[in-house]
Amino acid sequence: MTQTTPRGDDVPDVLAPAKLGPVTLRNRIIKAATYEGLSRDSLVTDELIDFHVRHAAGGVGMTTVAYCAVAPEGRTDRRQILWRPEAVPGLRKLTEAVHAEGAAVSAQIGHAGPVANPKSNGAPALAPGRHFHLTTTSFTRAATRDDLARIVKGHADAARMAVETGFDAVEIHLGHNYLASSFLSPKINHRTDEYGGSLENRARLARNIARAVREAVDGQIAIIAKMNMDDGVPGGFWLDEAIQVAQWLEQDGSLDALELTAGSSLLNPMYLFKGDAPLREFAAIMPQPVKLGVQLFGKYKLRAYPYKDAYLLDDARQIRAAVDLPLILLGGITGRHVMDQAMSEGFQFVAMARALLREPDLINRIKAGEDARSLCIHCNKCMTAIYGGTRCVLVSPTSSRDPRRDATATS
Amino acid sequence: MTQTTPRGDDVPDVLAPAKLGPVTLRNRIIKAATYEGLSRDSLVTDELIDFHVRHAAGGVGMTTVAYCAVAPEGRTDRRQILWRPEAVPGLRKLTEAVHAEGAAVSAQIGHAGPVANPKSNGAPALAPGRHFHLTTTSFTRAATRDDLARIVKGHADAARMAVETGFDAVEIHLGHNYLASSFLSPKINHRTDEYGGSLENRARLARNIARAVREAVDGQIAIIAKMNMDDGVPGGFWLDEAIQVAQWLEQDGSLDALELTAGSSLLNPMYLFKGDAPLREFAAIMPQPVKLGVQLFGKYKLRAYPYKDAYLLDDARQIRAAVDLPLILLGGITGRHVMDQAMSEGFQFVAMARALLREPDLINRIKAGEDARSLCIHCNKCMTAIYGGTRCVLVSPTSSRDPRRDATATS
Amino acid sequence: MTQTTPRGDDVPDVLAPAKLGPVTLRNRIIKAATYEGLSRDSLVTDELIDFHVRHAAGGVGMTTVAYCAVAPEGRTDRRQILWRPEAVPGLRKLTEAVHAEGAAVSAQIGHAGPVANPKSNGAPALAPGRHFHLTTTSFTRAATRDDLARIVKGHADAARMAVETGFDAVEIHLGHNYLASSFLSPKINHRTDEYGGSLENRARLARNIARAVREAVDGQIAIIAKMNMDDGVPGGFWLDEAIQVAQWLEQDGSLDALELTAGSSLLNPMYLFKGDAPLREFAAIMPQPVKLGVQLFGKYKLRAYPYKDAYLLDDARQIRAAVDLPLILLGGITGRHVMDQAMSEGFQFVAMARALLREPDLINRIKAGEDARSLCIHCNKCMTAIYGGTRCVLVSPTSSRDPRRDATATS
Amino acid sequence: MTQTTPRGDDVPDVLAPAKLGPVTLRNRIIKAATYEGLSRDSLVTDELIDFHVRHAAGGVGMTTVAYCAVAPEGRTDRRQILWRPEAVPGLRKLTEAVHAEGAAVSAQIGHAGPVANPKSNGAPALAPGRHFHLTTTSFTRAATRDDLARIVKGHADAARMAVETGFDAVEIHLGHNYLASSFLSPKINHRTDEYGGSLENRARLARNIARAVREAVDGQIAIIAKMNMDDGVPGGFWLDEAIQVAQWLEQDGSLDALELTAGSSLLNPMYLFKGDAPLREFAAIMPQPVKLGVQLFGKYKLRAYPYKDAYLLDDARQIRAAVDLPLILLGGITGRHVMDQAMSEGFQFVAMARALLREPDLINRIKAGEDARSLCIHCNKCMTAIYGGTRCVLVSPTSSRDPRRDATATS
Repeated sequence: MTQTTPRGDDVPDVLAPAKLGPVTLRNRIIKAATYEGLSRDSLVTDELIDFHVRHAAGGVGMTTVAYCAVAPEGRTDRRQILWRPEAVPGLRKLTEAVHAEGAAVSAQIGHAGPVANPKSNGAPALAPGRHFHLTTTSFTRAATRDDLARIVKGHADAARMAVETGFDAVEIHLGHNYLASSFLSPKINHRTDEYGGSLENRARLARNIARAVREAVDGQIAIIAKMNMDDGVPGGFWLDEAIQVAQWLEQDGSLDALELTAGSSLLNPMYLFKGDAPLREFAAIMPQPVKLGVQLFGKYKLRAYPYKDAYLLDDARQIRAAVDLPLILLGGITGRHVMDQAMSEGFQFVAMARALLREPDLINRIKAGEDARSLCIHCNKCMTAIYGGTRCVLVSPTSSRDPRRDATATS
Repeated sequence: MTQTTPRGDDVPDVLAPAKLGPVTLRNRIIKAATYEGLSRDSLVTDELIDFHVRHAAGGVGMTTVAYCAVAPEGRTDRRQILWRPEAVPGLRKLTEAVHAEGAAVSAQIGHAGPVANPKSNGAPALAPGRHFHLTTTSFTRAATRDDLARIVKGHADAARMAVETGFDAVEIHLGHNYLASSFLSPKINHRTDEYGGSLENRARLARNIARAVREAVDGQIAIIAKMNMDDGVPGGFWLDEAIQVAQWLEQDGSLDALELTAGSSLLNPMYLFKGDAPLREFAAIMPQPVKLGVQLFGKYKLRAYPYKDAYLLDDARQIRAAVDLPLILLGGITGRHVMDQAMSEGFQFVAMARALLREPDLINRIKAGEDARSLCIHCNKCMTAIYGGTRCVLVSPTSSRDPRRDATATS
Repeated sequence: MTQTTPRGDDVPDVLAPAKLGPVTLRNRIIKAATYEGLSRDSLVTDELIDFHVRHAAGGVGMTTVAYCAVAPEGRTDRRQILWRPEAVPGLRKLTEAVHAEGAAVSAQIGHAGPVANPKSNGAPALAPGRHFHLTTTSFTRAATRDDLARIVKGHADAARMAVETGFDAVEIHLGHNYLASSFLSPKINHRTDEYGGSLENRARLARNIARAVREAVDGQIAIIAKMNMDDGVPGGFWLDEAIQVAQWLEQDGSLDALELTAGSSLLNPMYLFKGDAPLREFAAIMPQPVKLGVQLFGKYKLRAYPYKDAYLLDDARQIRAAVDLPLILLGGITGRHVMDQAMSEGFQFVAMARALLREPDLINRIKAGEDARSLCIHCNKCMTAIYGGTRCVLVSPTSSRDPRRDATATS
Repeated sequence: MTQTTPRGDDVPDVLAPAKLGPVTLRNRIIKAATYEGLSRDSLVTDELIDFHVRHAAGGVGMTTVAYCAVAPEGRTDRRQILWRPEAVPGLRKLTEAVHAEGAAVSAQIGHAGPVANPKSNGAPALAPGRHFHLTTTSFTRAATRDDLARIVKGHADAARMAVETGFDAVEIHLGHNYLASSFLSPKINHRTDEYGGSLENRARLARNIARAVREAVDGQIAIIAKMNMDDGVPGGFWLDEAIQVAQWLEQDGSLDALELTAGSSLLNPMYLFKGDAPLREFAAIMPQPVKLGVQLFGKYKLRAYPYKDAYLLDDARQIRAAVDLPLILLGGITGRHVMDQAMSEGFQFVAMARALLREPDLINRIKAGEDARSLCIHCNKCMTAIYGGTRCVLVSPTSSRDPRRDATATS
């Protein structure tokens, strides 16, 4: 296998069915996790089901419910779905509705760690150590070994509930400086126990979680992990270590596929989202004094990175060259030509986020033979809409392609 | 309908005749409104007629007379055409002269609102509220409900006079932070009555104007509106709201076509005009203390945006995807290839401004089969020539293609 | 004639013979004037002859001797060639030597005006008015009407001597803020007599010179003028006025071709020379306090402009569209493809400077069918070599293509 | 010979065998010298042999052992290989191991001069004069004539030992402001004896070294020199002088090929390494107060230059045009297309550094017909790994293409 030779007849058709671990997807396109902001009381709502039905109906092979916390203090918002018995009926209703549209459905499971919202959760955020974080204006609590054991078990329990409620896959969150990712970071993790120091120690939590999930669900549903290649901050987790961790995860046999991402929700949120930094909108949703900081210094802290198609590909090639594990390419997948490039370079799946928020039916239009290209203009205002229901601010229920259009408000 | 699939046989020929509401243009190319600076005493002059005859003779489907105020205090200059009985003979002479060249002619009607020149008009500028504006160094007056009713009626009256004087279309000015546009802007409009607050309220004036015009002239001439997609200022009117307003205007049935523009004559005049910011020339035409400000800080305030062909297309695609209303693409239309791209993406017309000021005969040369491309170098010095008769500063009456050339001055 | 349609069969072959006024050049490529710094006592030297023989042997249609002052105080250096009887034998020897190589030869004639070196000349520099110029650290003297009459006559006399000494053409210097160019500039020329104020007045000197030359030599040799399109300084002479002056020169019938240039030797020397600004080398050749200024502020004052092929073409198209006069395109002509583009856009000749300094035999190699492209890296260090004999600093007499190579120094 | 005409049938195949002086390489691709950091006690280690066997097995025509000092005080690190009898067995073992893989092997010989590490060596660094150097926080010692004679002889002795120990070539280090390069630099060398002043004097040491090596080994092995074209610092050694020195070296007949490089390990280390400047990693390996300086001002001093393929080609063409000596093109050789370009422009060999650190088997994959392109992302973190064994930080012994992969650590 090589990442550079076009595969010729061997290059898979991104629109043809494909195996992902024990399940078969109708195509190789995954709606990436984008926190929907549509759950209430940590339970599924009809709006959340509608959201995923819309994406399923739009043609993707699998949609991803995001994000489903494995512990109460691991939520980024207290309304977020929590894996507990009360959530089962709603989750089952959701998976059935997605399946009815012909798509598979994955549950993103994880613990937000230092990215969690302690004020909303009513509990301090867990992290490798105790730190003051300006973004949340509070101190994190250093996770104890018991915390970590509980959280590992929480992932396994969550995965079992995912099986029980009809999910086709779970996606373990190992990125964006959420808990497992914060342990990977040499900048954040200064522990001196077996979870800190060497990369092997820093990777212990991530690997333990993945193995526990594998043991819990082995063979029943697919297991994906979403992992950073680059935290986007000097001294953070970077490609050199990401390659090694990817190899360990492959050797552990705990994953069916690895989704490659970048950036830190804590330290550099714009690193993943190339394009514009919507400062004004960010400031509006932040509490003081962060709001003031964004207004004063936002242009420095929230750096904007120029957008280009397949913007994570240069980095992802490094992982592609190092493991045989199926890989999911994320970032700047805007049309058929980018999907084909990903396939020809040896990636097994592509994941799309903003482009599908802009046009949930984009895949259907590509299937229909259109030379469709995403309308997304990378304004990233979808990022700032997460507390009121994540959506592209340019999509309204009255769009010309929406059958409900005629019922729209008139002044 | 889709904005991304080339139409093949369905893609219209930009040079073939096309219906615009009740009228038929000889082709799909419109000379966009560029304030001519050639009226005197608010009446048509021979120079103004010459200006439009030159463009009509140059091959466009329709030329646009700009701008014709619906109220005395709505002029950006007191010499500007005002719709009143005294203006009728001149306007009729103008439309007849344009028709004689085979082109249609549109009248841009509107109220400059906060962009009006209170010193020139001898009356305060109207705006959603009372504000001090540095550009005009004066306070605006908050428009009363009676003002707004009068102005809505003024548009209807103007449209009727346009029919009467032989125009083929009217173009309602809903952009550039002129009055209706200033009401759309959440940054400028802080009213608490039914014309402020929600988008529905802020859009009320624009929609009322368009409906009044429709009622006044329905079926006799075409009705176009020119609306901003982006004011070009943080917190201003932007695409998300522009999509909704475009949908409302479509539902109202008040328009035959919508022309898409951007920028604010008040707050960011360069946002529309990609290319160079002619600071020195701007300073020269400004009164003190604005002149001093432009000299000192002009390079900051008058930001230059890099030019590229079809520079409004990324934004205009968002509107194209949301409505079925015929759309007119403006901005960086420099030759046949850009026109063809606009057609293939589902726009029904293109509008050209600077390129036609540079070469009024460009369309004829394209028709003649030349692979003609605009000579315009986007120096934007035409913007600063508006008080002495808007013209490309590189065009003189002695150009080699001008029959009057031999009569030129010699030293 | 149009500047945008490829000419097909009508496009001239840049390598075929072409008429330039009364003379025929073996091809359409002219070695542009680059002050050689090789004259002594205002007379031709053998080194100067060698310089032009080298370029003639290299294949150009015509080489240009630069620069030949029409008055003692009009030299940029007192060693510069001055048109007087003593110069005749050397000039004749030079033209015969160039002709022996099959090339034509042009003499650039002019008066440096404010660019002249008063200390070297022992006389103040002439200008439209009295000014202190930092670059020469001295005051200019305002040219009187008698001065101007004398200088006009000087050009005519120089042209007659050019005929007498065997030149095929003269090139009148109307650019770079030399005397005639400084009169054109509204920034430099504040005269209130018939040589200042209106463009017609500011252009009077340039036109008078060209007409006097025409009267002096009509029909015997070709007459070229080299004129700025843009001084490169705010408020300086720019395209709008350059178009008019070009039209007047055409109407006057005084020229056989017009060479288009840009920049000001006085105010913005880098504007013409896109590429690197060799600050260190500039500082080295400047007297104090200019030297200190270049060292301290050089990077600001000596702005570098990015290089691109045919970098004056966008501007030159404006002149091309306005006159029928044969035009010579200068600036970034680096190989056959750029020459062909110039021909297809309606230019009759191309002029090359730095590329031929780098490789005097480039044209021969192009003729030989090579897809040759200039080696020049636009370091502009040739500009700083002018007092020791202008040369590309990367060319030594020992280059591998030089037959004299074997005789080179060894340590 | 010309540098611009594609050679057609004359263009050599980069993968075919080629003569380099008296030896024949299996192809035209050379693993460039990159200090390996793998020697101990100035002797070869098994790790160093493994390093070169890996590159030999990967398919290059020749690998380069770097760097082998000709004098104790000429090492950049006291562990570096020193040419003395004790080193012979290890060097012989190394050359035999490389030959067993079918590749040739070159020894880079030189004296670090001011780049040497005086603290590690226990002796002051030698330089043209006495200077304080911030990078090494110490004073250099001015080399005496006796020092220079000793060092010239040291090169000859080293070359003889290279023959004795089985090397196919030696590569004399004349770049990067190492000793011979520091003598070439007009910025560093202010001597007033026969080794300073004129270029002839400044080049004396370099030429003497090359001639001494030629006399020592003539006909037995190939002799390469690696020389700067541009020190990357204002006032340093630049192309104009590099052309002359290349011509002198050619005339001296002392070289079989010249490798063209750029930059100064002393003054501008990033000039050679286009791409990212890994500041954090640089700071980590520097002693105080340099460490502080890098942290505070690193972004200014360690300028990053944008990467592009074949980034030294524009400069190297200047040398190519001036000599017939075989040339080795270095810098941004990332795949077959760049190699082919180098061949078509008249370069006889290419040298690769970072791309082969990233993928030692890249050449084999190109030979196998793959359209392979380097994975290297130009992060330049390999530069900061030199004291622990130079390596691409993205390459681990567990890569998927490494047979030893299964034996890797697990947590």
